[in-house]
Amino acid sequence: MSQKGTQISDSGYNVAVVGATGAVGQEMLAILAERGFPVARLRAMASARSAGGTIDFGGKSVQVEDLQTASFEGVDFALFSAGSTPSLEHAPRAVEQGCIVIDNTSAFRMNPDTPLVVPEVNPQAIVDQPGIIANPNCSTIQMVVALQPLAEAAGLERVIVSTYQSASGAGQKGIDEMLKTTREYLDGDTENPTAASSDTTFAYPLAFDVLPQIDSFLDSGFTREEVKMIEETRKIMGLSGLDVAATCVRVPAVRSHSESITVDLAKPLSAEQAHALWSDAPGVSLLDDPSTLTYPRARQAAGTDATWIGRVRQDLGRPKTLHFWCVSDNLRKGAALNAVQIAEEIVRRRA
Amino acid sequence: MSQKGTQISDSGYNVAVVGATGAVGQEMLAILAERGFPVARLRAMASARSAGGTIDFGGKSVQVEDLQTASFEGVDFALFSAGSTPSLEHAPRAVEQGCIVIDNTSAFRMNPDTPLVVPEVNPQAIVDQPGIIANPNCSTIQMVVALQPLAEAAGLERVIVSTYQSASGAGQKGIDEMLKTTREYLDGDTENPTAASSDTTFAYPLAFDVLPQIDSFLDSGFTREEVKMIEETRKIMGLSGLDVAATCVRVPAVRSHSESITVDLAKPLSAEQAHALWSDAPGVSLLDDPSTLTYPRARQAAGTDATWIGRVRQDLGRPKTLHFWCVSDNLRKGAALNAVQIAEEIVRRRA
Repeated sequence: MSQKGTQISDSGYNVAVVGATGAVGQEMLAILAERGFPVARLRAMASARSAGGTIDFGGKSVQVEDLQTASFEGVDFALFSAGSTPSLEHAPRAVEQGCIVIDNTSAFRMNPDTPLVVPEVNPQAIVDQPGIIANPNCSTIQMVVALQPLAEAAGLERVIVSTYQSASGAGQKGIDEMLKTTREYLDGDTENPTAASSDTTFAYPLAFDVLPQIDSFLDSGFTREEVKMIEETRKIMGLSGLDVAATCVRVPAVRSHSESITVDLAKPLSAEQAHALWSDAPGVSLLDDPSTLTYPRARQAAGTDATWIGRVRQDLGRPKTLHFWCVSDNLRKGAALNAVQIAEEIVRRRA
Repeated sequence: MSQKGTQISDSGYNVAVVGATGAVGQEMLAILAERGFPVARLRAMASARSAGGTIDFGGKSVQVEDLQTASFEGVDFALFSAGSTPSLEHAPRAVEQGCIVIDNTSAFRMNPDTPLVVPEVNPQAIVDQPGIIANPNCSTIQMVVALQPLAEAAGLERVIVSTYQSASGAGQKGIDEMLKTTREYLDGDTENPTAASSDTTFAYPLAFDVLPQIDSFLDSGFTREEVKMIEETRKIMGLSGLDVAATCVRVPAVRSHSESITVDLAKPLSAEQAHALWSDAPGVSLLDDPSTLTYPRARQAAGTDATWIGRVRQDLGRPKTLHFWCVSDNLRKGAALNAVQIAEEIVRRRA
């Protein structure tokens, strides 16, 4: 298992969670425990600000180490989710010290030598000595899980997505800020003056508003989040010329990202045929019965593992076009779960 | 001015607002006063439940009449916004009694003999003896105001829209329910049990959720709201074969509808060229400067008259495709303002 001769416990793997006190780090710890990942020793690392405290892992208290000084010697898997700058600085060091790094930031995703993996879509991208494996953007992961069965059966010609992304995409700080500005609004402070400062996570108070901006703007007018969805989708699906457009929008939901997706296919596909494909697809749960008002919702998907699909309909004029609605918990499948699944895939191959 | 010889006051027109106590009716009264529409006498009508009370019009108290028994004799303009059933029952009677009816419901919109009008787009559809003029769906109005300059300059080939519609699209009851379930959620009642009853406006509590359903479902899997956007856009723009697809979604905003629109044109158009077209377009206000995080938002647009446009960008691979973000106050331009503008257009022609 280990590279460069690191020790492996008989009872499992040594796993480091980097950014262990953040929203995604907390979810990583929960998912490792829930799924019974074979952890011999769990190490928790974070910035100096959070170091010294403790986190809970499967009922046991674990001391949080300072990432700046922590050694990765003896660690088999390091799951990084502490931001791009810490990943750029410490992930190469962790690899040097013998780790496989599964990195949840955008730092290495588009590096041609770095596998960018969604296990339901491109497990074959995990090479034998991977070093760093990148975990894709949250909005991208759920979309490619949904698109893959359509691509295999009917071929993708064009994808247009508009997102409805929750506050938790900006971490616990984003959730807290949204709840705070919502309370202010309900208390009559409909201007939310406190949320307009330079300390805030969102550019405007998210309470009862809709913000068509996620991440920063590029010269093209697209945001980095939108370009991530375009470029990462091409890389993961192995379709370098795929025609993809994205509009990424923040809405006042706590958790889960929702997506309105239009896909032009190379062949006609009915809603029923698409249902059949998705029924058999890994990671997908259909929730699509208009007669009982059954469709995926942000709150319904929160805390679940699936990529939920509903509102499936063939275009009224274009038999090769489908429209559908896709919701997933951005902290789980969109981040922590996908990272743990990558580790599980490596363990499975080496068993 | 009047049909069938109704009396017209020297100082203006007799105007009836039907559904005067509702969210749109209240906005109609405010806009008639704000814009100085030449009102000789204002009549307020509503269901028996609301009749007998009073509303305010320009600082004066007006008694609310029971629509069931109220006469339209002597009324020049009747602005209906009390729901489709009251419109179907009483609008023809109002026309019989000499009114021009401007109807905000979907009751008559797709009737081939009924003009469906957005004054910035198709004022020519207002015929000389109109009887009933239909006011389009709120989501449709702002979209066609935005699309018309592009259609004239570059021709429309295909339109794909995903909406982010506020609670106020379901009236004051919708706003109240959303605020109530939000308070419950913040008080720790994250299941919102009270909102699951048959009395509720939304199928699920809207608090911190995203609901991909507006209006009821059709056999095609599309909702009535989505089909309204498709069919009404074709009728207003006079493009009977236009390729339009819509996905309509409720989000927890109080007021204003937002739309992510992708448009394929017959000719290439840069974002700068589109800006120039929209700068000169009636009813449009551009708000598009990524360098200062300037873009339209639901809260920013609330209470304003414009159709706000931002996030304008040419597709990264398709020079004939534009993506943009469009926000407007659904109670104003999406309903009450457009209705009053129709009346103003008729007054202007007869001056």
